[in-house]
Amino acid sequence: VLFDDEIEALGTSRLQIGMKYDDKSKRFAIFIIQLSNLAALSLPQNRTLYIRVAVLPCSENASCLFRTKASTAAENLTFNEVFWITLSFSALRQKTLRVDVCSVDKSHREECLGGAQISLANVIRCGEWSTHWYNLLNLHYLQEESMKHD
Amino acid sequence: VLFDDEIEALGTSRLQIGMKYDDKSKRFAIFIIQLSNLAALSLPQNRTLYIRVAVLPCSENASCLFRTKASTAAENLTFNEVFWITLSFSALRQKTLRVDVCSVDKSHREECLGGAQISLANVIRCGEWSTHWYNLLNLHYLQEESMKHD
Repeated sequence: VLFDDEIEALGTSRLQIGMKYDDKSKRFAIFIIQLSNLAALSLPQNRTLYIRVAVLPCSENASCLFRTKASTAAENLTFNEVFWITLSFSALRQKTLRVDVCSVDKSHREECLGGAQISLANVIRCGEWSTHWYNLLNLHYLQEESMKHD
Repeated sequence: VLFDDEIEALGTSRLQIGMKYDDKSKRFAIFIIQLSNLAALSLPQNRTLYIRVAVLPCSENASCLFRTKASTAAENLTFNEVFWITLSFSALRQKTLRVDVCSVDKSHREECLGGAQISLANVIRCGEWSTHWYNLLNLHYLQEESMKHD
């Protein structure tokens, strides 16, 4: 069980992400750069982890779910992987980008530890990279919170 | 069951939110302004709804969970309610703002229909309102998606 002051003390894990819309090719790029303060996500020992990226809502035939290569856990991790998705600018601005730090447990099931959700309503069309750090919410913490309120 | 093309056709519900950090009083203001395209959240008939606002992670004794007054459903809804939370600027920049459109079902349980998560890692300190529209993800859609991948 994660106690509140434990959560505060751990600080926040963050993910640096770049985004760019290329008007000519009608494609949107998501650049997963690096992850900081992994300790705040309470990753189980000797697990490899990766970033799962989803552009939502995602219709059946579109490819809008991506995963980076897996890395062994370290305090800060660099990924530097770019994913491209083809869609119109107007469709893009109705989407939400979901990024999660995930790993595979002993029974080979995907388990996500923390994540962020980024509304794409204000994406700009200028074709330049827009790069920011995003706070990741610890999903174990969220599950415990929702049990308290049920 | 929500089919993908049904989701695309409904478009996206959006929430307009203003935020401001007041350095003198060490308080953060969240201004819930208005909700658009409610139809995209498939709200059950004759239900009133409200916006639930949470600043996460939220330690036990802090007050960081708020709800607007309830309104009868309409295509677009104006709330114009401001909520204040007291915390340092450095603590604020580690938080995530969670906003959800919720309503109370027949058995008086809170049911949330759609929401957005906003990283506060890049909040500015200048004391001016920063106002944007945020896309809301339909939670029924997310639940169906996660069942497909289980």
